[in-house]
Amino acid sequence: MNNSHENTALSFERILFFSDAVFAIVITLLVLELKPPHIDRADFSESALQHELLGLVPKLLGFVYSFFIVGMLWIEHHRVFRFIGHWDFGLIWRNLLFLLFVAFIPFPTALFSENYYSKTAFILYAGSFGLAALGKIFLWRYAVAKRGELITDETSDETIKQITMRSWAVPIVCVAAMGLSLVAVAFGGLTLPLIPLVANLLYKRRPDAEAEA
Amino acid sequence: MNNSHENTALSFERILFFSDAVFAIVITLLVLELKPPHIDRADFSESALQHELLGLVPKLLGFVYSFFIVGMLWIEHHRVFRFIGHWDFGLIWRNLLFLLFVAFIPFPTALFSENYYSKTAFILYAGSFGLAALGKIFLWRYAVAKRGELITDETSDETIKQITMRSWAVPIVCVAAMGLSLVAVAFGGLTLPLIPLVANLLYKRRPDAEAEA
Amino acid sequence: MNNSHENTALSFERILFFSDAVFAIVITLLVLELKPPHIDRADFSESALQHELLGLVPKLLGFVYSFFIVGMLWIEHHRVFRFIGHWDFGLIWRNLLFLLFVAFIPFPTALFSENYYSKTAFILYAGSFGLAALGKIFLWRYAVAKRGELITDETSDETIKQITMRSWAVPIVCVAAMGLSLVAVAFGGLTLPLIPLVANLLYKRRPDAEAEA
Amino acid sequence: MNNSHENTALSFERILFFSDAVFAIVITLLVLELKPPHIDRADFSESALQHELLGLVPKLLGFVYSFFIVGMLWIEHHRVFRFIGHWDFGLIWRNLLFLLFVAFIPFPTALFSENYYSKTAFILYAGSFGLAALGKIFLWRYAVAKRGELITDETSDETIKQITMRSWAVPIVCVAAMGLSLVAVAFGGLTLPLIPLVANLLYKRRPDAEAEA
Repeated sequence: MNNSHENTALSFERILFFSDAVFAIVITLLVLELKPPHIDRADFSESALQHELLGLVPKLLGFVYSFFIVGMLWIEHHRVFRFIGHWDFGLIWRNLLFLLFVAFIPFPTALFSENYYSKTAFILYAGSFGLAALGKIFLWRYAVAKRGELITDETSDETIKQITMRSWAVPIVCVAAMGLSLVAVAFGGLTLPLIPLVANLLYKRRPDAEAEA
Repeated sequence: MNNSHENTALSFERILFFSDAVFAIVITLLVLELKPPHIDRADFSESALQHELLGLVPKLLGFVYSFFIVGMLWIEHHRVFRFIGHWDFGLIWRNLLFLLFVAFIPFPTALFSENYYSKTAFILYAGSFGLAALGKIFLWRYAVAKRGELITDETSDETIKQITMRSWAVPIVCVAAMGLSLVAVAFGGLTLPLIPLVANLLYKRRPDAEAEA
Repeated sequence: MNNSHENTALSFERILFFSDAVFAIVITLLVLELKPPHIDRADFSESALQHELLGLVPKLLGFVYSFFIVGMLWIEHHRVFRFIGHWDFGLIWRNLLFLLFVAFIPFPTALFSENYYSKTAFILYAGSFGLAALGKIFLWRYAVAKRGELITDETSDETIKQITMRSWAVPIVCVAAMGLSLVAVAFGGLTLPLIPLVANLLYKRRPDAEAEA
Repeated sequence: MNNSHENTALSFERILFFSDAVFAIVITLLVLELKPPHIDRADFSESALQHELLGLVPKLLGFVYSFFIVGMLWIEHHRVFRFIGHWDFGLIWRNLLFLLFVAFIPFPTALFSENYYSKTAFILYAGSFGLAALGKIFLWRYAVAKRGELITDETSDETIKQITMRSWAVPIVCVAAMGLSLVAVAFGGLTLPLIPLVANLLYKRRPDAEAEA
């Protein structure tokens, strides 16, 4: 029962698979906020059920929203770790801090979906996405500062600059959404889908660099 | 603490393991819909508990049904990614869209299991499976369109055609089940297990091609 | 973004990691049955809380029991797949059936832990473990029947016989426990920990074969 | 569909990925203790919601606390398995016992967060972390006793001694916290963050050994 696999590679993989599992659980738990209505067979009518289901539409939108933002955070984690090829305990702790913010997301999602007319709830909601994104920036800056040790040799200056610049899209849009929500919650909500646009404004991939990140 | 593993392979694996984790969570959460009855020791009788358990049989059937349909979607994902050997961000986003539909499944399952006499609930139930299957078709068509880049070289035209054809079994059966459920919910329910049969009608594996897909 | 990893190996790994994730979720969800008591600060006394916690001891025992039996099923799955080195769709479907029984376990566990004085609940509890073990036997027999294709070449007749024989320990003990529980539930409960003993009675590892299974 | 991957390496990886999945689920379930307040639109005021949210601060602190302690246990598991390169069934069973203690953690966390003024609850909370840490020591001692078989050849005496010494930090701090909580729960709570400090007191990494563990 000996293990031919090199343990060092396995140690690195475990960090990623542990993170992937946390992301997968968070993204799948989001649906549990959607509590299905129940109408007893005696009182049942299709239109009564349809009416109850329509009342769930704001929660459904919240589910789709949060799913894609958590998905985007996973993609950012995936992107960053394509260029990180080595690890140390400083990286593990920063990754754990990032995962703390990710694991927290179901709470503000549920809070906002229960109180979708509340500015406080929206600010906590957008704020927690912004915080998670800052956690990723903190992790990435650490890796860049120890570039010779943690980042794979083939990684170009261009790639590092691109990831660093684009990283700011989520925090910037989240702060803007938090500000706009003070006028009306809906304005805040309409701002969040602008993240990919802002990422491109911050750093447009040149066509020939597209394959890289 | 250097990582001998090639990061590119790891980036590909993470997409699959993240997807597997989402599937595993969805398929395991289904059982949580089965809430066990409790009878206080003072009032307890075996026959009272047995009576309550019998009332759970429709929910139990719903659990088994959904388990196998989610399992089938996992098998389809597994099948498709045997021939996809490379990735790009277009593929990741389409995979995320597919996972959104998969992660949504616990909601219509719970809804239908709470209101198993409702046409609305059944239509949402069958519809969400159909939607997930369409998500997989969308992903696969993207990979096929970029065949030179995303699909492994050894993949034959025959295999691609077979996967494409058989992919339509779930959406076709789901639409048929939704239609039949308008007559009676039970008719819809009895239609769903026909999926493997319809897949074979759409494209029968030739005996010598069996090893491939 | 090409993937140097051979896709065939990855397809095999996914079956195992998907199964591992289902096992891990089932084994971790068991604790959710232990609902913590809450006493308001105004009425709080340490002895009142301690009294409520003592009432949870039967549920705690149920948690430990189920944890180890699910853990044992995972070990059996792990053992069997050390000798299965190839896969086909027949194996995937049998593995899915096995996972259905495993994913079902939180329900009888919760049922028995809510009604720990009920013979019906105990019979369902022990029965579902027995069923899961039968699912594993069904999977293993399939692999053995296709030995040339699915089982790694180095696997000896001795190893195959040993796994086959020892596999029957869980179903045999579960049926015995179900029978004894008709006299008193406690008798059934005391029977379950005999599984490792019965496994050794069915097939004792010879000292020189210990390294193999 | 043959599997080029060597099954022995895969058997080892499964033990780690199963453990990682259990850790990931436990660490992500912690947030479910934070139940979001809901205020009907009719009665809604931002200040009422903010007031309710402030009442959740003790639970939020509990979430952050438990997240980092579970994270620390994962890091310890990760650290130990960098030097364990082979497995046997004795190791699997000890790993399962360790995971039992880890999977139990959501219960005392919820209990303490529901009754944050209770000494009983705090003692169970700190005690369960201590127990999990003892489980890890039990696992590691087994591996060290079978050093020639289970531990990779390159592992130095220095590394083994360091891991063994530092392992005692969590149990020592937990026992101290349990004792101090008898004076006041807050004293116990303030003791737990001393774990890294105590680990360094028990065995300070020499600068040149830093790369190793």
